[in-house]
Amino acid sequence: MHETIALRTSGQGLYEFTRAVQRFLSDMPVRNGLLTLFCQHTSCSLLVQENADPDVQADLKAFFRRLVPPANDPSMSYLEHRTEGPDDMPAHIKAALTQTSLSIPVIEGRLALGTWQGLYLFEHRDAPHTRRVVAHLLEG
Amino acid sequence: MHETIALRTSGQGLYEFTRAVQRFLSDMPVRNGLLTLFCQHTSCSLLVQENADPDVQADLKAFFRRLVPPANDPSMSYLEHRTEGPDDMPAHIKAALTQTSLSIPVIEGRLALGTWQGLYLFEHRDAPHTRRVVAHLLEG
Amino acid sequence: MHETIALRTSGQGLYEFTRAVQRFLSDMPVRNGLLTLFCQHTSCSLLVQENADPDVQADLKAFFRRLVPPANDPSMSYLEHRTEGPDDMPAHIKAALTQTSLSIPVIEGRLALGTWQGLYLFEHRDAPHTRRVVAHLLEG
Repeated sequence: MHETIALRTSGQGLYEFTRAVQRFLSDMPVRNGLLTLFCQHTSCSLLVQENADPDVQADLKAFFRRLVPPANDPSMSYLEHRTEGPDDMPAHIKAALTQTSLSIPVIEGRLALGTWQGLYLFEHRDAPHTRRVVAHLLEG
Repeated sequence: MHETIALRTSGQGLYEFTRAVQRFLSDMPVRNGLLTLFCQHTSCSLLVQENADPDVQADLKAFFRRLVPPANDPSMSYLEHRTEGPDDMPAHIKAALTQTSLSIPVIEGRLALGTWQGLYLFEHRDAPHTRRVVAHLLEG
Repeated sequence: MHETIALRTSGQGLYEFTRAVQRFLSDMPVRNGLLTLFCQHTSCSLLVQENADPDVQADLKAFFRRLVPPANDPSMSYLEHRTEGPDDMPAHIKAALTQTSLSIPVIEGRLALGTWQGLYLFEHRDAPHTRRVVAHLLEG
């Protein structure tokens, strides 16, 4: 039981896709189990984060930009991998600092998320991309 | 097969809960499978870390405080989300830098942890909290 | 269905072990399920990263060395845990910043990795080590 969720992004930042995952889940004949989300890219990543105040998402983006500046920033002059521009290698670093896979229990047909938790794709590239996240459900 | 483990915290730092997970496991009629831990909050997180020398836990807390200072530190003046005080947004950032979910194989009735590995809740808020971690076991 | 994969390392950096995981998978009588990788150490960790350009791996190592310098660097004088030398506590910190476990769907007998994704052990210690990663497969 699996599905590939395609997500359109338009620049760096967090894109919530909780509803897409809930839709996948509601199509499945399973009440209890384990949901796995797997990001098939190395320049974007996954996060569970607060979905109440959009400032949280903006601040996360701002923090990571300061922690890992673009490759044309003087502090990043040591970077060798620059094939696809100044946002290329910083994207791989930000992906390494966050998550590629997430595991979420499913209980009585619902994701066991906390009250304020949402599921996000964290895009680290500037150009628009279509990203693929594999949603996979195990019964049990 | 799941249980919500409640953990009391009293300020930032690492709180080991390996034994609570082992207790959950010992109540289950399963010898082999996969244990998932899922943290239902966005201002604390999960870590597998060394449980031999308490200095490791203190140093981890100190590193993260330097990497993500409180919001009233001049270097963090760009933060917008300040609803709940200077430890609010740094808590979300530290959670993003660590783990929300952990997956641990269960073999012959035991967690497949290495010799020095313990399971920790990493609290990122200053005030006392009761935190919920969902423990979920799949047989197989 | 599980196996412990032993990996020899010789200093800090990324060591790809995608093929070892694929070999484990090809020995299993399972076409669909969930593969979990669990690192049994707290001074090395797991990453899914690009396997096309080796510069990416070198740059990741360089970034993490700058973010978490050795304990004999003046900026790290606050560290208390120094039992095993200047690469000891930084190794625990780098492990906390990356992953201890990874979950990857298995679809039609293959890991659901993206085109450029490889599985890496990220060694954070200077001395040679033999590292153990538990590969665990659940059918479903």
